[in-house]
Amino acid sequence: MIIHDITRLTVLLAAKKDEIKKKMMKRIILASQSPRRKELLEQVGLKFEILPAGGEERITTKDPALAVRELAAQKAAKVLGRAKGDCLIIGADTVVALDGQILGKPADEEDAARMLRMLQGRSHSVYTGVALLHREGDCVTEAVFSEETRVAFYPMTEEEIRGYIKSKEPMDKAGAYGIQGLAAAFVEKISGDYNNVVGLPVGRIWQELKKRGWFCDQTL
Amino acid sequence: MIIHDITRLTVLLAAKKDEIKKKMMKRIILASQSPRRKELLEQVGLKFEILPAGGEERITTKDPALAVRELAAQKAAKVLGRAKGDCLIIGADTVVALDGQILGKPADEEDAARMLRMLQGRSHSVYTGVALLHREGDCVTEAVFSEETRVAFYPMTEEEIRGYIKSKEPMDKAGAYGIQGLAAAFVEKISGDYNNVVGLPVGRIWQELKKRGWFCDQTL
Repeated sequence: MIIHDITRLTVLLAAKKDEIKKKMMKRIILASQSPRRKELLEQVGLKFEILPAGGEERITTKDPALAVRELAAQKAAKVLGRAKGDCLIIGADTVVALDGQILGKPADEEDAARMLRMLQGRSHSVYTGVALLHREGDCVTEAVFSEETRVAFYPMTEEEIRGYIKSKEPMDKAGAYGIQGLAAAFVEKISGDYNNVVGLPVGRIWQELKKRGWFCDQTL
Repeated sequence: MIIHDITRLTVLLAAKKDEIKKKMMKRIILASQSPRRKELLEQVGLKFEILPAGGEERITTKDPALAVRELAAQKAAKVLGRAKGDCLIIGADTVVALDGQILGKPADEEDAARMLRMLQGRSHSVYTGVALLHREGDCVTEAVFSEETRVAFYPMTEEEIRGYIKSKEPMDKAGAYGIQGLAAAFVEKISGDYNNVVGLPVGRIWQELKKRGWFCDQTL
């Protein structure tokens, strides 16, 4: 009787192991061509492909938290049509918001200077929206959320603003700064997830995948 | 009269520029062989040399904020004796503290598991102490401070702890984790400076240098 139970348990465990292994092998697709998002997913040990959404996204709200969710969901949805078979698609969008106003990427150097003058010496919010689209057979499940991180800047002199713009770093970034670059010199503190400011809240993503059994890690 | 004033102004500005340039050329020495500290100083565009302190440091307190200041000051002081001429020496030390208890680097894998079990599912503090030793002629000025950052971990399963230890990442790090590595998957949020957790509060250092006219940046 005891031997029978142990045999049964062994069979059950083996089946469970296969099931877990199958889940771990799921194909992950990042719907973004941001090198920073790529680096962050790599940082937590995920293996994935990149399929940029392409084209334009549209927002129907001025609320930054809602806007980034809309944009992330649109990016993920575009890629879902092109990806075949079972997969997990990650779409994301990041904006900087000051007093509820969204700051996108600067149009030119003057625009970057204007944004940095607004941000220096005070706090603002960074929102990243994430859409996780999970397809298994004919069943698609979507999880969309956003994370807010507060970022406090030290006061910046006009010389520092000009020097920073000269480095070109602000030009392709929402709010005209990169916290993971030279701008680290001007950040006093943050409250929330740092990686959310860089472009992807990998901690939250990990937890959401785990919670839903979409856990696809190949390393940890 | 106006022309005379403009000429005078031009001369004054040129002198000021030379003075600034001279200040900018100061030799910076990082008294640490941590690759993470090296990366952070490079990130904010500083040019510097590395002269590790070597040997053992001693603390006379169990208070983590005071302990890291003592350790940072001892490291910087050791290097001051070996460096010649005008220079700025940066010494630093980082510890993780849980309920006032200091967690250093893990002794072995079991020790790492013990630390991670303590840290998971709650918040702890990371303290980095910094000593800035500035020598100009025969005058040495020292500025010592510490920064605290609160870090909140998501709950971790025993499987995640084991998987993380298997990656070897915890083994050379205070508190048995690297926020800039795989551990990003387990960090819910922080409050304070992120780079302080990595090993060097570059924002605060920048501000302290600026405030004292020890501003040595060659990029911004």
